[in-house]
Amino acid sequence: MERDRGLAPEWEIERWFNSAEPLTLAGLRGRVVVGVAFQMLCPGCVQTALPQLRQVHDGFDRKRVAAIGLHTVFEHHAAMTPVALEAFLHEYRLGFPVGVDRAGPDGGMPVTMARYQMQGTPTLLLIDALGRLRLQHFGHVPDLLLGAQIMRLVDEADGLGLSPGGAVGADKEQAEDAATCAADGSCG
Amino acid sequence: MERDRGLAPEWEIERWFNSAEPLTLAGLRGRVVVGVAFQMLCPGCVQTALPQLRQVHDGFDRKRVAAIGLHTVFEHHAAMTPVALEAFLHEYRLGFPVGVDRAGPDGGMPVTMARYQMQGTPTLLLIDALGRLRLQHFGHVPDLLLGAQIMRLVDEADGLGLSPGGAVGADKEQAEDAATCAADGSCG
Amino acid sequence: MERDRGLAPEWEIERWFNSAEPLTLAGLRGRVVVGVAFQMLCPGCVQTALPQLRQVHDGFDRKRVAAIGLHTVFEHHAAMTPVALEAFLHEYRLGFPVGVDRAGPDGGMPVTMARYQMQGTPTLLLIDALGRLRLQHFGHVPDLLLGAQIMRLVDEADGLGLSPGGAVGADKEQAEDAATCAADGSCG
Amino acid sequence: MERDRGLAPEWEIERWFNSAEPLTLAGLRGRVVVGVAFQMLCPGCVQTALPQLRQVHDGFDRKRVAAIGLHTVFEHHAAMTPVALEAFLHEYRLGFPVGVDRAGPDGGMPVTMARYQMQGTPTLLLIDALGRLRLQHFGHVPDLLLGAQIMRLVDEADGLGLSPGGAVGADKEQAEDAATCAADGSCG
Repeated sequence: MERDRGLAPEWEIERWFNSAEPLTLAGLRGRVVVGVAFQMLCPGCVQTALPQLRQVHDGFDRKRVAAIGLHTVFEHHAAMTPVALEAFLHEYRLGFPVGVDRAGPDGGMPVTMARYQMQGTPTLLLIDALGRLRLQHFGHVPDLLLGAQIMRLVDEADGLGLSPGGAVGADKEQAEDAATCAADGSCG
Repeated sequence: MERDRGLAPEWEIERWFNSAEPLTLAGLRGRVVVGVAFQMLCPGCVQTALPQLRQVHDGFDRKRVAAIGLHTVFEHHAAMTPVALEAFLHEYRLGFPVGVDRAGPDGGMPVTMARYQMQGTPTLLLIDALGRLRLQHFGHVPDLLLGAQIMRLVDEADGLGLSPGGAVGADKEQAEDAATCAADGSCG
Repeated sequence: MERDRGLAPEWEIERWFNSAEPLTLAGLRGRVVVGVAFQMLCPGCVQTALPQLRQVHDGFDRKRVAAIGLHTVFEHHAAMTPVALEAFLHEYRLGFPVGVDRAGPDGGMPVTMARYQMQGTPTLLLIDALGRLRLQHFGHVPDLLLGAQIMRLVDEADGLGLSPGGAVGADKEQAEDAATCAADGSCG
Repeated sequence: MERDRGLAPEWEIERWFNSAEPLTLAGLRGRVVVGVAFQMLCPGCVQTALPQLRQVHDGFDRKRVAAIGLHTVFEHHAAMTPVALEAFLHEYRLGFPVGVDRAGPDGGMPVTMARYQMQGTPTLLLIDALGRLRLQHFGHVPDLLLGAQIMRLVDEADGLGLSPGGAVGADKEQAEDAATCAADGSCG
């Protein structure tokens, strides 16, 4: 049913923040990737999309879900330099990996942004554990539905035995731990 | 692994709103049940838990997920009568089914609330398609994690062939439709 | 310039909460009155207008500014009874005086609400220290502008020598104390 | 009573945005000045203080109240350059005048910020029509109280005949116009 879904195009990253080594979609295979293309001076990104991505980073098991920012600067290039981005990530306490999209040949839209034919920022990307692009959305996705869609892809990966340890194995997800669980009526 | 999880205790409901007929957990078997025990004069319920439940009601496929409110009045009984509840549901535009928990013998905690040993309102209940209580949480659960937990139970039901039509069949979920999906880099 | 401004019509109150004795506009002469006509099941009242009135109650000198709620029930009478209102004020921690508008002859709009020809709830009333209605507004007034308008009336009263102790006398307003003041560049 | 209040120290500005000509406190005499010292990468400034200053700019009569931003960069100098600030003001749709505080001799705290001995950003400054510093506050001031304090200073200026046209003259304030006024019970 999903055999015809194409692989997500690889990212072209000039430089990484919050990651000791470069990240590639190929290297992230086996994990669900939640990517947010943003610009540090885009109000909707700062107020909504990046706090949401931080919640994904904090709320899901990082062995199963990778939260990653892409700095896709297509305007005000002189303002949104890597040194400015570094200060921004520090001041806003954003700890997930952020890659700087490679500048385009004409100084306009950067390479990865163009490759995905994005319409603007923020743009959400959901990539499954097999590396296929499953969702691309310009604008806001409500938390409730985003959480559901991420878990759908995690469950698929578990079903395929792609997750670390296989299936719903020994590793408890952070998501399940986030609220006190109950197996019977007596717990609270 | 989950064979020892107990069935969720049945609810004792005096009266239903927004439902043409009485609902029972037994009758809801096959669907994931998201229940919120609330009081119409509890600020945390009004401001957070009930709007969240409305989002669940609106965002998920109702053949797979049932969003249900339980009016568990344990104080101010003279203020939170069924007629007051009906006006409240109307004014706040809450369209999901709401059951009035049966009053307790002593005029204190109502029957269902006592049976689940709830600590107060709001209390979230997550019940899987086999009728087992999987989560009981007093207070707030962030949208992102709630969405993930609901989908986890939906996926389990699909895996067991419990969903309508079986598996991920012909019925597309509303959740997946909520944002424009993409199978390759060219869609947006 | 304001000689033609009429006196605010007196209120008709059945019962007071949070006040040891009945309040009348005549008795409040000398103070600026900030009134909010509300219904306990009106979402805009609960979410916005009443928290704002609580801020007025907490932020201004009560010898100069009286924050008062009017429960003007024009629908769902069986739900919004005085006993329900009492529970509501308790649960929402609202400590300012609240008067219950006297029921109208036909069970529809109550007496005070009709007298002021209000369009609905919430409705804000600003009455100056001479008892004149200076503002009547259906819906939301931003905090910044409400604060300004209240202070304008307080200053007018001070100018007329109507305030307790006269002018800007010995009583410091809470408003001025709310943030650390500074008379020169060295304070912070 | 306030004769001993010192004049607010003059600002040292390198460059202005959103102002055709340089502004000085001396030149603003006769108007109440609401100043906010901020950094474009300070989250509290972006989320709270600058939207509040925009409300002041939009809500009060500009002949009486001047809303002005001061970009007081004391860290991440390479990130918060004038060109970055210009992009920031454009993206966040901030239309009030903003002055760039002159860099300090050591590359640390800029000149005006040091002169006022500010503790950080955001810092609110309220300067009366006589040029005296009446409030300096590090952090957030609630809208309701800020509106009151601004109007207090406007009323003082009116009382001194400092306002344009004198007293409460022909110019209606925007604040008074912001909500429909009423002189008697029949208006709404």
